[in-house]
Amino acid sequence: VSARRSGRDTVSFLSDYGTEDEFVGVVKSVLRQLARGAVVIDITHQVPPHDVRAGGLTLQRAAPFLVPGVVMAVVDPGVGTDRRAVAVEVERDPRLVFVGPDNGLLVPALDALGGRGRAVALADRRHPPGAGATFDGRDLFAPAAAKLCTGTDLEDLGPPIDPAGLVPGARPSPAPKGTGLATEVLWIDRFGNAQLAVGPEDAEHLGERVRLTLPGRQVLATRVATFAEIAPGQVGLVVDSWGMLAVALDRRSAADELGLAAGDEVVIDRSDADGGTSRQ
Amino acid sequence: VSARRSGRDTVSFLSDYGTEDEFVGVVKSVLRQLARGAVVIDITHQVPPHDVRAGGLTLQRAAPFLVPGVVMAVVDPGVGTDRRAVAVEVERDPRLVFVGPDNGLLVPALDALGGRGRAVALADRRHPPGAGATFDGRDLFAPAAAKLCTGTDLEDLGPPIDPAGLVPGARPSPAPKGTGLATEVLWIDRFGNAQLAVGPEDAEHLGERVRLTLPGRQVLATRVATFAEIAPGQVGLVVDSWGMLAVALDRRSAADELGLAAGDEVVIDRSDADGGTSRQ
Amino acid sequence: VSARRSGRDTVSFLSDYGTEDEFVGVVKSVLRQLARGAVVIDITHQVPPHDVRAGGLTLQRAAPFLVPGVVMAVVDPGVGTDRRAVAVEVERDPRLVFVGPDNGLLVPALDALGGRGRAVALADRRHPPGAGATFDGRDLFAPAAAKLCTGTDLEDLGPPIDPAGLVPGARPSPAPKGTGLATEVLWIDRFGNAQLAVGPEDAEHLGERVRLTLPGRQVLATRVATFAEIAPGQVGLVVDSWGMLAVALDRRSAADELGLAAGDEVVIDRSDADGGTSRQ
Repeated sequence: VSARRSGRDTVSFLSDYGTEDEFVGVVKSVLRQLARGAVVIDITHQVPPHDVRAGGLTLQRAAPFLVPGVVMAVVDPGVGTDRRAVAVEVERDPRLVFVGPDNGLLVPALDALGGRGRAVALADRRHPPGAGATFDGRDLFAPAAAKLCTGTDLEDLGPPIDPAGLVPGARPSPAPKGTGLATEVLWIDRFGNAQLAVGPEDAEHLGERVRLTLPGRQVLATRVATFAEIAPGQVGLVVDSWGMLAVALDRRSAADELGLAAGDEVVIDRSDADGGTSRQ
Repeated sequence: VSARRSGRDTVSFLSDYGTEDEFVGVVKSVLRQLARGAVVIDITHQVPPHDVRAGGLTLQRAAPFLVPGVVMAVVDPGVGTDRRAVAVEVERDPRLVFVGPDNGLLVPALDALGGRGRAVALADRRHPPGAGATFDGRDLFAPAAAKLCTGTDLEDLGPPIDPAGLVPGARPSPAPKGTGLATEVLWIDRFGNAQLAVGPEDAEHLGERVRLTLPGRQVLATRVATFAEIAPGQVGLVVDSWGMLAVALDRRSAADELGLAAGDEVVIDRSDADGGTSRQ
Repeated sequence: VSARRSGRDTVSFLSDYGTEDEFVGVVKSVLRQLARGAVVIDITHQVPPHDVRAGGLTLQRAAPFLVPGVVMAVVDPGVGTDRRAVAVEVERDPRLVFVGPDNGLLVPALDALGGRGRAVALADRRHPPGAGATFDGRDLFAPAAAKLCTGTDLEDLGPPIDPAGLVPGARPSPAPKGTGLATEVLWIDRFGNAQLAVGPEDAEHLGERVRLTLPGRQVLATRVATFAEIAPGQVGLVVDSWGMLAVALDRRSAADELGLAAGDEVVIDRSDADGGTSRQ
């Protein structure tokens, strides 16, 4: 069966392998040998090593844009243990199948896409002669992804499992705090913008100008539509490309200048709320 | 219309998105969905954030080697403002079309290729539900590139504009200074070689051995054909792979050891010219 | 002749070019123009600049998984000198051809694959107008790789040479030292695991618990099958994905915490051997 016939001729690939070593190239070599016609799209390989939460959030952000096909995601500190390896269809569009470890990495994206369809535990690990049991991207996930590209049905990859039983992922959600809203930094992007775990509608009632309580400081921030609207010296709160609120400066790194990191708590409040001195 | 029929089945892609985040992967996912047969070649995604000058110089260096097709370049600090987004054909070879923001990023490469042909302002931005207006690579440039790959004519992408009116890019050129030549460092490559904004013929009259006045120091340098000809302790001036003069050491970083950075002024002069003490 | 007919439609590409500059993109553009149907797989481009030993070891690790086709490897401090540029078939599977400089980079992988078949010195360098002689990836190796993809026979690329006369690569092997075994760190991977130049069978007689003498310290280490078996505070000795012993911690960097770097000597000995104090 050709890759094209099955409707799965693309493998979207995310990992924490980095690109300094040959890991990614070796996985792609395996894919190329087992599913010659499949095209690989690198989502990113620079998830911080072993950071399942960051990998899951990255995959969730990419999810609405993923091509029908296989999504292979590997951030897998438990490789070699008895954590399950799984393949899970997207319920609304079974042409899209996620393959990876069952450790919370896949679920945020699956749920963002509307929920989990059929799921199986992967059964067939390859064993290159002499090699250790520490590289499932090469020995387990890529062979499974290749099979899905060449027309193998999901259920031929291993025994069915209950999709409701998958290990859940990080799902931070905002909580009321005084007159405001406590949330956290989900992600610092390359430009230093700090994405918050809150959408614009959740904070709408707090007004166009808000007070942000960050670790160690308070700042006033202004709701803007684009980075370029942020005046020098001003802190912006922008609806970012994923529909979340992000703390941003114009052409400078908000994370660096405000000392923000993923996981930090941020409280958004009315600009005239009680609660200490404000800067700016 | 197939990608192949239109003669545009390759998208050469340059950006400042980095590869830590999913930006590049998401743009490629959009391309794959809208122009299935197109192949993407990454020029680089590690242009320093918002550095239009560096991006434009990188694109100019790559220009003579680009495959006929679409060149999509995104270094775009003005995203979301009213800066124009454009598609511009290369006059001598209209199979080659540049797509990107009109901020000086595209013009150096276009002019290095012999000049600008037809140009249009891109009109159709996609709006993923709920998302902000900060990711034109995904929402505007990739869809336009995909259309060019699937056979849409340039003029169907938006209203024609005057190609002479595009924002010009950085074009540093050498200027006489005393008996010598003042120029600047265009680029430090991965190996620490410092490319100057001057070709070998411009400096030929200064001889095989020249004096370089760098920020904070003077050194003697010798014209050589290859890096390996540079003796230990010697500074070389090599004609690099783009036909420009570059300050180099053998197997060591000239930038690190001589304290050079992009944008620094360098004066090239005869080795016996007046002007202070010399090292080496 | 189509790329597919010749059985060489994949180019596996390793270099020290990095991805900050446009080098890799330019080489791929040349390949795409000269061998349209060939697919490029990046092994890695982040070999440390000019580090032939590291590049050769990386290529050797990837070797067993490489797709039949062309393997183009460029770590080439001698570019522009009279060092030979070569193409060498794998004796057991001539569909696999290595292309690169003859400086020790290719031989470890070739020998790991069972030995060298036919070999030629590459004869036809392209000379982009005005450009210097410092970019053989673009001007020599990519055109040769493209010819091999489009059906040119190896012997049409240049005069035959004796494959036994290729410059040998690094081949560190363990040596007895007292009751133990002296070896070295081959490679620190992204996760901080330190791969040693010794397989598990070589050290089997030393037992499940061994003493490691590292630069500046001694530690006790335990043989384990997976990273996750390593207890907090414990040092593990794991059979890694390439069948070599590696010094590892669970979810932390052994290299950082134990101060290990590529090339360091490590002595493995029985845990009760003489020789100083032990930690842990």
